[in-house]
This record gives sequence, structure tokens and C-alpha cells, in this order.
Amino acid sequence: MSEIVTAGLLVIGDEILSGRTKDKNIGFIAEYLTNIGIDLKEVRVVADDEDEIVAALNALRHRYSYVFTTGGIGPTHDDITADAVAKAFSVGIDHHPEVVARFRERWSDQDLNEARLRMARIPDGADLIQSATILAPGFKLSNVIVMAGIPTIMQAMMDIVAPRLKSGARMLSDSIRANAREGDIGGPLREIAMAHPDTIIGSYPFMDEEQRPNTNLVVRSRDPDKLAAAMTAVKEMLANLQVTR
Amino acid sequence: MSEIVTAGLLVIGDEILSGRTKDKNIGFIAEYLTNIGIDLKEVRVVADDEDEIVAALNALRHRYSYVFTTGGIGPTHDDITADAVAKAFSVGIDHHPEVVARFRERWSDQDLNEARLRMARIPDGADLIQSATILAPGFKLSNVIVMAGIPTIMQAMMDIVAPRLKSGARMLSDSIRANAREGDIGGPLREIAMAHPDTIIGSYPFMDEEQRPNTNLVVRSRDPDKLAAAMTAVKEMLANLQVTR
Repeated sequence: MSEIVTAGLLVIGDEILSGRTKDKNIGFIAEYLTNIGIDLKEVRVVADDEDEIVAALNALRHRYSYVFTTGGIGPTHDDITADAVAKAFSVGIDHHPEVVARFRERWSDQDLNEARLRMARIPDGADLIQSATILAPGFKLSNVIVMAGIPTIMQAMMDIVAPRLKSGARMLSDSIRANAREGDIGGPLREIAMAHPDTIIGSYPFMDEEQRPNTNLVVRSRDPDKLAAAMTAVKEMLANLQVTR
Repeated sequence: MSEIVTAGLLVIGDEILSGRTKDKNIGFIAEYLTNIGIDLKEVRVVADDEDEIVAALNALRHRYSYVFTTGGIGPTHDDITADAVAKAFSVGIDHHPEVVARFRERWSDQDLNEARLRMARIPDGADLIQSATILAPGFKLSNVIVMAGIPTIMQAMMDIVAPRLKSGARMLSDSIRANAREGDIGGPLREIAMAHPDTIIGSYPFMDEEQRPNTNLVVRSRDPDKLAAAMTAVKEMLANLQVTR
């Protein structure tokens, strides 16, 4: 079985913590990474504060195969992600000649002001993440991938960077609607979970279309045979359930 | 000026990290806390893993006035938040007599199985967060507030627990639509930010209804006079802007 590849995600921005902006990137990145065989293990959201960003970067980058960041790469004073990454890695940061050249094609000398030039500041040694439609580039420095906060741009950057990443054995999953209340299946489900240690069994209650408490069960494993065996056990348990709803 | 009250939020659940469930609680709690004068400083999302939960709880609870958690208080084997909180505080955990009594009113002996009784396990010394419509209670132990993951239930729990919390001087905010591209105002905005140190000025680009790049500017401060002074400076800057869009 191939290596397990892990990731942490660092969402950077006062506006998420104040509730002004509702994050849409965590869910997208979580699903994206699952689909390419990278396990997202932890997410952190921190403010536009260099010390906080550096501390979180250093906590995550030593722990996981990759760290993805979103936010803080625009042209204004509160965009400090690139500087924080350079500081976390103790490398220099300067205007990247390739990015400056692209900016000169795009903007007149008058429009290419100091604020816009900030977006060309890239830590030494980083690879750019850019395309014709991306204004401020993202970048990848070692195992840290720095992306925009605006969802459409972040998503374009994910598509660019994903082929450069190693990916592991993909986590497989199967799910079934229990048509039972979570409390009625908790006991037998625990026994199945204990009997199938190489699987992860999740139980997610919801109100169904008849406004009755119902439960989705999700079985996950990297091994298709173990996944199937656990799923069979779950289905047998549900078929034998004697409890009336 | 009154004390500054801070909070961390810990979202617990494999389903968020796999992308299967899209979190709706972070945005709600962020906005709720801002409105009651509590500054959300950090969010973490971790898996249904006791060691991870305990480590995150201990990191956050010593650092912020309050820690809120969502998820992992249901009846199944993957619901381990209460145990993790007990472990983090090194206190015991047992079936809470008041909760068990409520469960006995609600369920027959047959339905009140071991799985459902798990929802009555509350760390020693915790105060319950419950109401007639809440099935599995949340609880507050010291500065840690444990809530359900299902948004409607979590929201009901926030309403119950909020009056018990101390709150600080509320962060005030004002915003203005710049009708300018972020890159055109980054320079003067930085000068305003530096000249108004007790305010936080955020710049948020967006595509407006005419599909032109536009920017929302948000000024925040606990001091209404300083907020107004910074906002006046921002408005003057925008009025004097010579750049054509």
C-alpha cells in the first residue's frame, strides 16, 4: 500500500474570525484533497497577525506532508501572508522578476504602484502558482502552498498545484442511509467499528423528509476489501434491527 | 474601557475534514461572538481522535477567555468529545443523574440503551446546557463550552449559554464600498492604517454587479471616536482618488 499523504490547512483572515465573511474554502479544499488521495488532518483559522501566522505555519508544516494556506496575498497592508511564510522559513523575500515582468505587461507605470508591486513579493526559493487569469500569484515553498482567499482564484490555484503534489492511497468510502435513529444503532455500530479496525465508521444524524430523526452511516478505508466487509456488517446489522421508529 | 474577552473555537469531526459535511458553525459562531463582545481569535478543526481533541483543547483553553467546541456529543462510538474534555481537565466523567432522569421521562427502558445513555455522560463539575427541545445536553466546564455539531441545536445552545458569559467592550465596525480597485487604494490605505493605530482596517476585493473589480473597506475599533476618525480619513482618501476605473 502506498504512503499516506497528509495536509494541514491554514485560513488567514480577520474577516473570517469576525464573521463578516463566511469561509467557503475549507469545505472545497477538504473535498478536493480527499479526492486526490491527501488526508486533511487539521484546519486552523488565524487573524491577519504575523506572529500568529508564523506560529501556525511552523506548527503545521513540521507535522503534515503539506500545508495549504488561503488569504492575505493581495495588495493592501493587511495582506501579510508572503512575509509570514518567509519569516517561518527564515528566508528572504523580494519582488520576483518574473511576476514584475508580467505586471508590467498588464499595467501602465502609473497603475503599477507600490501596493500592486507588493503582490510580486515572493519568498526566496518559492515556485510560482499562476496562470493568465490569476492576478496575484500564489506560490509553493517547500511543503507550504500559498493561495488566494477569493474562492474562484483559490480553486484555480488548486488545479494548477495539484499535479505537482504526491498523493497517497486514496481513502475510499461508502455510505448508507440507516432509516433508524442514531441512538438505536449506537450499540451494534460500536461493535462493528471495533471488529473492523482498519476502517473508520462515522454516524451522522439528520432529520429526514418526513421530519423523523434518521442517520447516515459512512464507512471509510484505504483497503477496498476491508471497506466492503465493514459495509456488509453494517447492512446486516440494519436489516436485523428490531426497533420501531 | 472594559476588559477584552477572547475565544477559541474547536470544531470536532472527521466529516468536516473529509469534506463530506460542509461546516456551517464557524461563520455563525464568529458572528454571534462579535455581536456579544467576545473576540474570536482562532479556530481549529480536528478529527474524532481523543489525543487530537485533548491537545487542541489544552492549547486553546489556556490561551483564550473561552473555548467553544462543536460536534461529537451524540450516542455513537465516534462521539468522544465529553471524554476528551474530562481528560483535558483531568476530571472524572459519569452519567449525570439529572440527564439520566430526563432521559427516563423521554424513553422507555428498552429505548434507553447504552448508546443513548452515553449522551448523559458529563465530566465532573460541568454545568449542563439544555432545554426541553435539546436531546443530548451540552455543557460548560470552567471556560470550555461544549455544544452539538448540528447547526440548529448548536444555535439553541449558544442562546442558552451566552447570558452566562462575560463579554467585553464590543468591537465596533463601519464599512464603505470603495468603488475602486484594491490595488489603486493600497498605498493611501496603508498610510491611514498606520496613522490610526487603535483601529483595524480591512480591505476586501470583490467583483461588483458590473463585473468590475471593486473593494469593500471595513474599519473596526472598540473606541467609537477613533473608529469615526479613521472612517473619515478613508472617505476623504476615496473622494480624492484620481484613478479612473
